[in-house]
Amino acid sequence: MIHFECDYLEGAHPKIMARMMETNLEQNGGYGEDLHCARARDLIAAACGVEAEAIHFLVGGTQANATVIDAVLRPWQGVVCPATGHINVHESGAVEAAGHKVLALPCEGGKLNAAQVRACHGAHWNDATHEHMVQPGMVYISHPTENGELYTRAELEALHETCRALGLPLFLDGARLGYGLAAYGADVTLKDVAALTDVFYIGGTKVGALFGEAVVISNPALRRDFRYMMKRHGAMLAKGRLLGIQFETLFEDGLYFDISRHAIDMAMRLKDAFAARGIAFFAESATNQQFPILTRAQQAYLAEKYVFAHWANVDDGRDAVRFCTSWATNEANVAALIEDIKTL
Amino acid sequence: MIHFECDYLEGAHPKIMARMMETNLEQNGGYGEDLHCARARDLIAAACGVEAEAIHFLVGGTQANATVIDAVLRPWQGVVCPATGHINVHESGAVEAAGHKVLALPCEGGKLNAAQVRACHGAHWNDATHEHMVQPGMVYISHPTENGELYTRAELEALHETCRALGLPLFLDGARLGYGLAAYGADVTLKDVAALTDVFYIGGTKVGALFGEAVVISNPALRRDFRYMMKRHGAMLAKGRLLGIQFETLFEDGLYFDISRHAIDMAMRLKDAFAARGIAFFAESATNQQFPILTRAQQAYLAEKYVFAHWANVDDGRDAVRFCTSWATNEANVAALIEDIKTL
Amino acid sequence: MIHFECDYLEGAHPKIMARMMETNLEQNGGYGEDLHCARARDLIAAACGVEAEAIHFLVGGTQANATVIDAVLRPWQGVVCPATGHINVHESGAVEAAGHKVLALPCEGGKLNAAQVRACHGAHWNDATHEHMVQPGMVYISHPTENGELYTRAELEALHETCRALGLPLFLDGARLGYGLAAYGADVTLKDVAALTDVFYIGGTKVGALFGEAVVISNPALRRDFRYMMKRHGAMLAKGRLLGIQFETLFEDGLYFDISRHAIDMAMRLKDAFAARGIAFFAESATNQQFPILTRAQQAYLAEKYVFAHWANVDDGRDAVRFCTSWATNEANVAALIEDIKTL
Amino acid sequence: MIHFECDYLEGAHPKIMARMMETNLEQNGGYGEDLHCARARDLIAAACGVEAEAIHFLVGGTQANATVIDAVLRPWQGVVCPATGHINVHESGAVEAAGHKVLALPCEGGKLNAAQVRACHGAHWNDATHEHMVQPGMVYISHPTENGELYTRAELEALHETCRALGLPLFLDGARLGYGLAAYGADVTLKDVAALTDVFYIGGTKVGALFGEAVVISNPALRRDFRYMMKRHGAMLAKGRLLGIQFETLFEDGLYFDISRHAIDMAMRLKDAFAARGIAFFAESATNQQFPILTRAQQAYLAEKYVFAHWANVDDGRDAVRFCTSWATNEANVAALIEDIKTL
Repeated sequence: MIHFECDYLEGAHPKIMARMMETNLEQNGGYGEDLHCARARDLIAAACGVEAEAIHFLVGGTQANATVIDAVLRPWQGVVCPATGHINVHESGAVEAAGHKVLALPCEGGKLNAAQVRACHGAHWNDATHEHMVQPGMVYISHPTENGELYTRAELEALHETCRALGLPLFLDGARLGYGLAAYGADVTLKDVAALTDVFYIGGTKVGALFGEAVVISNPALRRDFRYMMKRHGAMLAKGRLLGIQFETLFEDGLYFDISRHAIDMAMRLKDAFAARGIAFFAESATNQQFPILTRAQQAYLAEKYVFAHWANVDDGRDAVRFCTSWATNEANVAALIEDIKTL
Repeated sequence: MIHFECDYLEGAHPKIMARMMETNLEQNGGYGEDLHCARARDLIAAACGVEAEAIHFLVGGTQANATVIDAVLRPWQGVVCPATGHINVHESGAVEAAGHKVLALPCEGGKLNAAQVRACHGAHWNDATHEHMVQPGMVYISHPTENGELYTRAELEALHETCRALGLPLFLDGARLGYGLAAYGADVTLKDVAALTDVFYIGGTKVGALFGEAVVISNPALRRDFRYMMKRHGAMLAKGRLLGIQFETLFEDGLYFDISRHAIDMAMRLKDAFAARGIAFFAESATNQQFPILTRAQQAYLAEKYVFAHWANVDDGRDAVRFCTSWATNEANVAALIEDIKTL
Repeated sequence: MIHFECDYLEGAHPKIMARMMETNLEQNGGYGEDLHCARARDLIAAACGVEAEAIHFLVGGTQANATVIDAVLRPWQGVVCPATGHINVHESGAVEAAGHKVLALPCEGGKLNAAQVRACHGAHWNDATHEHMVQPGMVYISHPTENGELYTRAELEALHETCRALGLPLFLDGARLGYGLAAYGADVTLKDVAALTDVFYIGGTKVGALFGEAVVISNPALRRDFRYMMKRHGAMLAKGRLLGIQFETLFEDGLYFDISRHAIDMAMRLKDAFAARGIAFFAESATNQQFPILTRAQQAYLAEKYVFAHWANVDDGRDAVRFCTSWATNEANVAALIEDIKTL
Repeated sequence: MIHFECDYLEGAHPKIMARMMETNLEQNGGYGEDLHCARARDLIAAACGVEAEAIHFLVGGTQANATVIDAVLRPWQGVVCPATGHINVHESGAVEAAGHKVLALPCEGGKLNAAQVRACHGAHWNDATHEHMVQPGMVYISHPTENGELYTRAELEALHETCRALGLPLFLDGARLGYGLAAYGADVTLKDVAALTDVFYIGGTKVGALFGEAVVISNPALRRDFRYMMKRHGAMLAKGRLLGIQFETLFEDGLYFDISRHAIDMAMRLKDAFAARGIAFFAESATNQQFPILTRAQQAYLAEKYVFAHWANVDDGRDAVRFCTSWATNEANVAALIEDIKTL
């Protein structure tokens, strides 16, 4: 079987594996205070236009989300989030585990806009009983969203200005950030993300690494004692070197961007093939996740050779399904799938 | 000004105050282990058809909700609730403070039905990624709802059977239970509530007491160590006698039911007056809260003499407002208001 | 039986009960925003030398402790506390329920001193692995302590200066504060407490009220959004008037201080009687709790007519026991007990 | 510099690295449901004498401790632990973050005994105010302890019987379990650990792996929904294969035991060298951590070539320091250090 169901099917990019082998018997101190982490922080800091002390390395996305949100909010505050947000749907209550309500807003696709944030904030503070309600304390967005969508720079600027004006830190979940930055037509750069959010992370798990998310706390006011929060959340890896080595490799010579672009190229081939066959999509995605809407028969046909994920029920005979590409997607597998799409 | 904005405007029923005075210098042990609490438990147990050890006295509704939910759920579980539920909207995140997500379901009015519970449960367990999602662990309803609505016995039986079949304890918030039991046409009795739920409470704060909610844990499987949970939630009143004395008085000679009926009678007079004037209602309520939809001019006119609460924006020129009656509502005040409604 | 086992055996001071009766049918808004609360805040503010907005009324001590500590600390911080502190021993983990470690320090009696706080703070920050340890975030003391002891003004000043220098808010649990202020020889006044701590509370439950603790947040930096925290902790009483009325009565004409002095006078008579009989004490207490060390035979003899509490095992044949007086203690009962002590 | 300060200085055993390389481009499903995890579970199950479904793979020790404890306890319960326990000292409050008190008992060295557990349990339940205190809900021990000590089989049996009799699940932190099993004179086997505890983990991070702890829930009653707890704690690694591959390699052909024995052999050489030089030890350790007590001059001398850790202040001129060996310790480095110890 050829797998397209998610973007974390393989290990790590061969350059990362090679670096892991080379450094394996080096003796490094623990907990992210080694030279590899230091160098990775410097490389990312330069790429983002922030100070190196803004950067921390965590193991996974749920962990990063829970730790950041717990560090930013006061107990009586909640995190404003699109209803489809990963923290609202797929983290088994990790945000609530730290005592915070997810203030989920209905949304078109997976995006929030500045007007929604203003409305939510206004509704809270204008309510005579606001002290009986969870106070909006920060805003969470994903870029790309869980449905593969991207914010434009104008949208992100509007969110940034609104959040700044309202005193709500803006947090961007970048579990697939590489794929968002590398998408054709995307006008948001890594430096834009750093400038327009208060905290975000650069996903490694889905973009070339074995695991690892680089949290960037652009806003210095939110940096205090973050390492205590990491430890408390079980998020301080003993052999922190492993995170340092991986991000060092990803941010040397633009590897992170190159491999992200590969995934995009593979995804666009699939997108074009589905579109050419007249198949509609559940969401308009310029990134590595594509959500064609297939009949049960079409699904059964493709399922003989390929693994893909059910995404959403659409109507009686059809479902939205997900095909993912990644840094590791094999061109020959994509070509084979395209041939089969033609005969759907 | 004459106040109708809520149902906790006055102190306590005069019989309670008299009993508080009589017993004031008695020496009683603390923490709910005195003779007044014991007697109150016996009276309520008889009225509900449960064992006396099912019953605990807490001070307020948010406290009761948070303590019960925290006692019933395991950490990875959430509480299924109508979107309008008090725990979802008006408790400043007290449920999340104990680590639990409120799984809010959209609803007509403020009620949940058995089909929604089955659908929510099924959607969870049929999802391939259910371990990444908060597991439904119990069901919360209010009777009357926050909008004054009532479950029929058939509806409550259906919820009971569904919850039992799915292994989901059913919790009924009875902050205004007296008003639900005393409503004309209501077919749910206190014994029904005890038989058809796993845990519920009998609200005192809004029904004759200075404060106090009698939690009844009908399902013995949920009773373990509940007093530890009370203490941990700051919900074990030092002078527990105060709760015992109040509930003892309320459940002697049917006082709780009599004073509830008074509130209903007063509310029905108001309801009839609004209806006679051709005014529509935001929710169909047979209980002590009425939600007429008034123009801004009508609101301004009534606001000269009466205090009432804004409830919801309805359309451009009108709002739903709330008029509450209670055990303490003065007939003369109601008569005066009715006269003014006639001239709206 | 005559009860001396605790100081919350009776209801409330008759003046409070009278005021509750008089005001019972007044219509007052909820949640502490009524005129009685406003007046009580003004009276307490004047007595403490703070602004009225510093003051909030909660129902009980565990609730007050948990709410204050949760409001002051950040998630990775703990509260420094003498090992005997109520929050460490007798609150069923209410502090931990909000995610915080109690950093209990061994102590002589129930008091902390400034040197201990400095040492604890220094040990943390000098440890190379401090990010792996709970950070000291505030200091909790009780005055009187759980053993009836009092801080001198010099001791409190030293704690204040140390805490201020180290950035650790100082929180004083005043569940029995009246008895501390009224003790003979005590040199700490209410204004001293307000000036030398960042937050404290004036206990009502044990000093004349049915229930209620007046939290005073002397340090304006800690006041933000405290009412959200109260609601979240189930600590915002619907009929807040009840707290307002009680504290208004207690702080008119010095009632709080007068009734506290009565308890002290009664306690000193007992203390003298035990001492005259040659009986030693477990702790040196100038307040309303006395801890004589009695043989089993002495205990059995007194237990025929009096109820008192076991406090601690001392040695083979003896135990420390607790006799409490309060605002309500009857002189005749004390006289009877003194006669019986003479014949021990 | 030659490093001995901890046992997580290097990457992973070369066999693990080789297996990671070989399998790198395999396509595997996520979250621990791949074939490598399945095989690793089977191998560990056989080694422990438990069912494969008892086993889950987590990334690190603090994460494993926090997740297990949160899964076992009810909210009002705490975990009994020696005062030196890692969860009490070095996890930044991760246990408290989930709402639980660590009930730390004073101990000789780092071990608890059955009598202490019985006494703690008895003291709780015999206290008249036990509902006001955190209820002991489970017992945590480390084997080896943080000081390198080992339980004998007899001691572990006594703890097991006591815990079983009292209804307290026994949890063994095995972050360094390999070194405990491989120690000369140790009479506790892996099957013993599985039979005598309710849940434990087999540490990989410090014993040959890049990272990873294999949690074994021997007691089926504690297994329910554990994967939800993992996800909620951010402890479900997306590329679970990485854990499967590592533990598969460690439990084929006894690699885990062989490399553990190497560390012990290296440690014993150091121990003998210190002892031959007349140097005393802070703790009697048969495992991979050695704690010689050195003067400041001795420390300065060794610090010219070697890195080791400060452990505890002993007296004016001396400190206990820590030298660790591991699976990766180089014989030549040990030989060099021994030569230098001779000249101390």
